[in-house]
Amino acid sequence: MPRIDANRVLADLRRLAEFGRYETGVHRPTYSPVDMEARHWLAGKFGEAGLEAEIDGIGNVFGCDRGAARRLLVGSHSETQPHGGWLDGALGVVYALELARAFAADPDCAGLGIDAVAWADEEGHFGNMLGSRSFTDAIDDAELDGARSRDGVALREALAAAGLAGRSRRRFAPGRHIGYLEAHIEQGDTLDSAGLRIGIVEAIVGVWNYRVILAGEQNHAGTTRLARRKDAGVAMVRLATRIHDRFAEIAGPRTVWTIGRMLLDPNAPSIVPGRAEMQVQFRDTDPDRLALFEFTLIELAAETHHDGPCRCEIAPLSKSEPRPMDAAFQALLEQTAERHVPGGHLRLPSGAGHDAQVLSHRMRAGMMFIPSLGGVSHHWTEDTREDDIVLGAQIFADAAEAILRAEAAP
Amino acid sequence: MPRIDANRVLADLRRLAEFGRYETGVHRPTYSPVDMEARHWLAGKFGEAGLEAEIDGIGNVFGCDRGAARRLLVGSHSETQPHGGWLDGALGVVYALELARAFAADPDCAGLGIDAVAWADEEGHFGNMLGSRSFTDAIDDAELDGARSRDGVALREALAAAGLAGRSRRRFAPGRHIGYLEAHIEQGDTLDSAGLRIGIVEAIVGVWNYRVILAGEQNHAGTTRLARRKDAGVAMVRLATRIHDRFAEIAGPRTVWTIGRMLLDPNAPSIVPGRAEMQVQFRDTDPDRLALFEFTLIELAAETHHDGPCRCEIAPLSKSEPRPMDAAFQALLEQTAERHVPGGHLRLPSGAGHDAQVLSHRMRAGMMFIPSLGGVSHHWTEDTREDDIVLGAQIFADAAEAILRAEAAP
Repeated sequence: MPRIDANRVLADLRRLAEFGRYETGVHRPTYSPVDMEARHWLAGKFGEAGLEAEIDGIGNVFGCDRGAARRLLVGSHSETQPHGGWLDGALGVVYALELARAFAADPDCAGLGIDAVAWADEEGHFGNMLGSRSFTDAIDDAELDGARSRDGVALREALAAAGLAGRSRRRFAPGRHIGYLEAHIEQGDTLDSAGLRIGIVEAIVGVWNYRVILAGEQNHAGTTRLARRKDAGVAMVRLATRIHDRFAEIAGPRTVWTIGRMLLDPNAPSIVPGRAEMQVQFRDTDPDRLALFEFTLIELAAETHHDGPCRCEIAPLSKSEPRPMDAAFQALLEQTAERHVPGGHLRLPSGAGHDAQVLSHRMRAGMMFIPSLGGVSHHWTEDTREDDIVLGAQIFADAAEAILRAEAAP
Repeated sequence: MPRIDANRVLADLRRLAEFGRYETGVHRPTYSPVDMEARHWLAGKFGEAGLEAEIDGIGNVFGCDRGAARRLLVGSHSETQPHGGWLDGALGVVYALELARAFAADPDCAGLGIDAVAWADEEGHFGNMLGSRSFTDAIDDAELDGARSRDGVALREALAAAGLAGRSRRRFAPGRHIGYLEAHIEQGDTLDSAGLRIGIVEAIVGVWNYRVILAGEQNHAGTTRLARRKDAGVAMVRLATRIHDRFAEIAGPRTVWTIGRMLLDPNAPSIVPGRAEMQVQFRDTDPDRLALFEFTLIELAAETHHDGPCRCEIAPLSKSEPRPMDAAFQALLEQTAERHVPGGHLRLPSGAGHDAQVLSHRMRAGMMFIPSLGGVSHHWTEDTREDDIVLGAQIFADAAEAILRAEAAP
């Protein structure tokens, strides 16, 4: 049985959080100087753990096993959201590092190979999960050439400034890995509010995004009588209210939907808005429910358009399919958790996207959650109790061992 | 009877529209070089009409009668909205100019005095009706010192650049004027859609403005379950929908209300909004109805706050009282209109603000409208038929004569 070193795990997490420290969290955007310092530090740690360390042309940090027969790919991402939390991403990377060290220290684990990885840009500073998509051949040079940060910096320039220009990007080698395992904080409060210690991810939700445009007629807010107005703002708030009402009727137990962005034009107090726009998003693990939500949204938009007085157009912006996690990985994570904390674990979906969904297109994939205090995420106040961090590291290591040994069984 | 010269009225309006011409409209912000050129041109025209011309320290252009016993103050403003219409403001100024010329040409009108004026900044590029408020002593130096344009230019700098620094501001002289008369395009479509030629303004509406703030909790749109969200955007659209529904139940025949401005924070598609803000405005000529609207709005906001999950705060931003126009002026405008176009006129409120409401605090005031094609206003496509412009000028002149003669009657 591999034994993780609790103090070492906590010390490495705290050291990693020093790169870009902000209040009690971290500000470490992808390819920033502190992000690259952190990646070089991680590469050094992977090397100390006996792995062959490399930072590739997209910034992924690999620590590769030198000779095992069966290898599990393990990791997460190491950059953070702006003024984000200290554990989001970092936790899974340090778990992977500790796993490699625990296996190396345990003669019983000889032959169980760990490739550790810290993916680049899962948080989307320059694109959509660039690191894991580069590794799985799900990105082309045209996208890399065109990618820019929110501040307008070209990805190619950022890679050059980070010292990565000209390096090759490491691609997955078919047959090398039996699968991918990732640990992460939950980012919600399901585990924390129920006093549970471990989450086993059943699936990563699909996320469907739409732009809804209301087109009316801009007018003077004093001289234009109500009866003849075509107020795009009124049309938008009425449609949004109907969307919230109808979605509540058809939601599953874990469906979420959000209208996070709204714009009025010209957005002036004394002008009847001539145009309004909102983005509607919903997430679920069930493709049929996503389809039902889409049907309902399109129907509501069509009713608004038909009833007038404003025109209503709807366009999909993006649709990611739900990605189920490997059933056998889930079972072994659950058995391991049950051994450590009987009844203290839960199967649940991931409402957020993760590199595991990208990897799942190429190999079996599994994810394990530990609690987030109060469900806080993407904010520097995000935190998790130390005993949960330590327990998670041990369960993760034991589950990784079980997965590798199960693969070896006849 | 004064006779207006139709060709001269149209020619002067067209000449004035050349200052800052934009498409078929005009872009002539207050104190811009073209606005000052237009003001100097108007001063010249006032002089040619036999008036004593002056541009004062706030940019008001006066053309003053030199010796009549009874004087009527007549005019409007000469700057425009950004990319605004060619008649808004300009019409009333050219009517005033033509009125002075028609009186001067008619021996019967000797002794009936006209002071013509082109007010500065009714359109609010730097403040709230600066010119007429300066004239009526309703503005102090502190406000003038602090006033800035939307682009951040200080009023004092703009006045200096316009060559007006150091000039005194002309104030009203008690007893000099029997009242103020202003002509304007309707800016709505009440007259145009009913085929009417003249509107007699009963009152200028009061405009009450409020800021409504919804405070919730910003969260990850994927990992935060619906049940525990405090979504400020949901709270805002639900409250806005209730406002529209309840206001419709208590509205008078001419009440208008508008939610023209809405902001979500952080306004990102994948973040549950933690804060939302909207501006709610309503207008009516009836102070009791305005008070009922305010009561209802505060009640709805309080219900939202009480029901949760978001906090709701409301703060008044501004409240202008409705200003009735002088009853005798209305009667004389109506009698004159009836003589020219029997049945072709209508008493109606002004949904927009005008300099006449400022003047009405110091003297009797009246306003006359001519139709706007399609009710278009504050846009360069604003227009009015030529025959309506010409008819309006004659009725305006006849009504001004009647008002001056009525004052002379025992």
